[in-house]
Amino acid sequence: MYRPPSVNESDFSRFEAPVAREDQPRGQSIAEIVADRAKVSRAAVSRAFNPKAPLRADKRELVLRIAEELNYVPNMAGRALATQRSHLVGVVVPHVCSPWESLEIDALTTALQDRGFATLLFKTRIDRSLDPKLLSYMRAYNPDSVVVFTENVPPDQLHRAFDQAVPVYVDYPNEATDPGPPPESGMHRFDCLRVLQRDGIEQAVALLSGFGRRRFAYLAGNPKAQANTARLRTLQQVLAARGLPPAAVVDGDFSYQRGHDATIELFRAGPGAEAVFAANDVSAFGALDALRQALGRRVPEDVSVVGFDDIDQAAWRSYDLTTIKIDVEERVATLVRLILQRLQNRGAPPMTETIRTKLVVRSTVG
Amino acid sequence: MYRPPSVNESDFSRFEAPVAREDQPRGQSIAEIVADRAKVSRAAVSRAFNPKAPLRADKRELVLRIAEELNYVPNMAGRALATQRSHLVGVVVPHVCSPWESLEIDALTTALQDRGFATLLFKTRIDRSLDPKLLSYMRAYNPDSVVVFTENVPPDQLHRAFDQAVPVYVDYPNEATDPGPPPESGMHRFDCLRVLQRDGIEQAVALLSGFGRRRFAYLAGNPKAQANTARLRTLQQVLAARGLPPAAVVDGDFSYQRGHDATIELFRAGPGAEAVFAANDVSAFGALDALRQALGRRVPEDVSVVGFDDIDQAAWRSYDLTTIKIDVEERVATLVRLILQRLQNRGAPPMTETIRTKLVVRSTVG
Repeated sequence: MYRPPSVNESDFSRFEAPVAREDQPRGQSIAEIVADRAKVSRAAVSRAFNPKAPLRADKRELVLRIAEELNYVPNMAGRALATQRSHLVGVVVPHVCSPWESLEIDALTTALQDRGFATLLFKTRIDRSLDPKLLSYMRAYNPDSVVVFTENVPPDQLHRAFDQAVPVYVDYPNEATDPGPPPESGMHRFDCLRVLQRDGIEQAVALLSGFGRRRFAYLAGNPKAQANTARLRTLQQVLAARGLPPAAVVDGDFSYQRGHDATIELFRAGPGAEAVFAANDVSAFGALDALRQALGRRVPEDVSVVGFDDIDQAAWRSYDLTTIKIDVEERVATLVRLILQRLQNRGAPPMTETIRTKLVVRSTVG
Repeated sequence: MYRPPSVNESDFSRFEAPVAREDQPRGQSIAEIVADRAKVSRAAVSRAFNPKAPLRADKRELVLRIAEELNYVPNMAGRALATQRSHLVGVVVPHVCSPWESLEIDALTTALQDRGFATLLFKTRIDRSLDPKLLSYMRAYNPDSVVVFTENVPPDQLHRAFDQAVPVYVDYPNEATDPGPPPESGMHRFDCLRVLQRDGIEQAVALLSGFGRRRFAYLAGNPKAQANTARLRTLQQVLAARGLPPAAVVDGDFSYQRGHDATIELFRAGPGAEAVFAANDVSAFGALDALRQALGRRVPEDVSVVGFDDIDQAAWRSYDLTTIKIDVEERVATLVRLILQRLQNRGAPPMTETIRTKLVVRSTVG
């Protein structure tokens, strides 16, 4: 089970505690106290913190020494203007409260905070019907980087709002035909984390084949989600490569309720299946409850079920789900590495990193 | 089941689309283009957007007109310095990935984004052992407001980092003795959302009594969490008021695994119980799986189980948990109202709002 990392608070050393409020005469800011003691103007205090701003060397040294004595740092808005760094990283997601996304946001926020960045959350829609004004809105905060998913924000829209290669895309490429993003996708402009799904799917199909399963069904996620289409495409490729018939596809939307109801439709009105492959763990839980409670089937004796993600709930004993794991810690570490490398070298060509999936075996296949 | 609200993107009207990048000569910022066309300095463009900055009226008008033609707005760092508003709201949480907190962050981010604010996430620890430097770090972003929970950040620490009454506290008061926060808590300095737990607990105890349950156990959450101590305190008060024996208390930490293992200890080594009252839904799921699978007890025939929160998973058919609901939409709407009222009137005395809980009846009590 994934345990969220705890925050390493020892790395806030650059953000020293402000001078105690009691020391501060009413109405006078800490910056003004620094200016008074250094016998310079308030503007000179600001310039002292900006290495590019003109200021006599002895005055700069004096201001910085007094500021240090008072534990004073200018606020981020001032720092952002002075350094062109906002220390903000935007994360654009449709649903913070999905178990998978909340795991990822938790781990990403921890990792970024340990490095002096705060996470700015933006909500969008899963169907790419993004209002372009949201991009202007995000841009107004001048984030140092933005993490986006291909299914939420089309690259050509993002290109208009942000500088080349500053955003980091999470992409699900077509692994059969595609060693890199197709040129027309616009993805080649951006740093990219590519999630290759084939390994875990091949392992799952091999395990199911080994138990004699031949009739597969795919319980789909939201049809506009790239993760869903990539999973279905790869599953069908893997089945074909083994000479197995293609999976029957049942419409879904990644939710528990739809996973439950679609499974009942599949087994009552449709052809049923020997193995149900769900687009995510949450819809697999719906399928499991439908099979056992509404349909009276035994899992795994009558029907096997496989999920995708390996969220915490997959290990809960009522489900104990065999599932294809995306390692959230590896994924977040890779995202953070891409973000930091880009900030160190804005002009470097777009970078690509790749992570893979693997099967986690529990008790729903047999 | 709670459905996250979708984002209302029509309210971004103040953040107009930037000028297309194709119009922009290499290396020249949009602000510089505005400055060139208006025949003023780059600094004058910044001053034009700050009503307090000195600039000749005709120049200001010209800059603003050209900026409008080019769809230019200065970035938030500049706006923040000019307006003293960062349009950022900090949210301080220990675990983004707990189902309850991720629901709340999702709904809060949606509501704030619809009003032109972005959510800044900060991770902390549940035991109040906060490094004071995290507060300086948060303060450096100059958030317009901060939402904190009493169990994570002690009021006296927060008072040193933020202006009076800017943060909004979520608090769990002692409802038996306490019509308001005790003066020594420091809470009276801040705006406060008080969560009163008694209603739902009284309803749960009444239902359990009605089914003849007399021997209660409380499966505790993290002992340092105020929500946990408030729930236990209120439960014992409600039981005493009905003349029922006090609940046996089993140590826990809000997790599924600990809920599972603590329930096995309670029934194998301890006195057992006729009703298990869990500090949150997730640990109630662990209790249910332990009772049915490891201990061979029927729920609700042998043992009744009640949770707290009403997260989505409580409605999943493997659990179908009777639980005490905190209405996340009401809670978030109240938080946003407190934040906006405070921003409109910084000098107003601290405000307090109250929300209540209610029982949601499913199939684990009977």
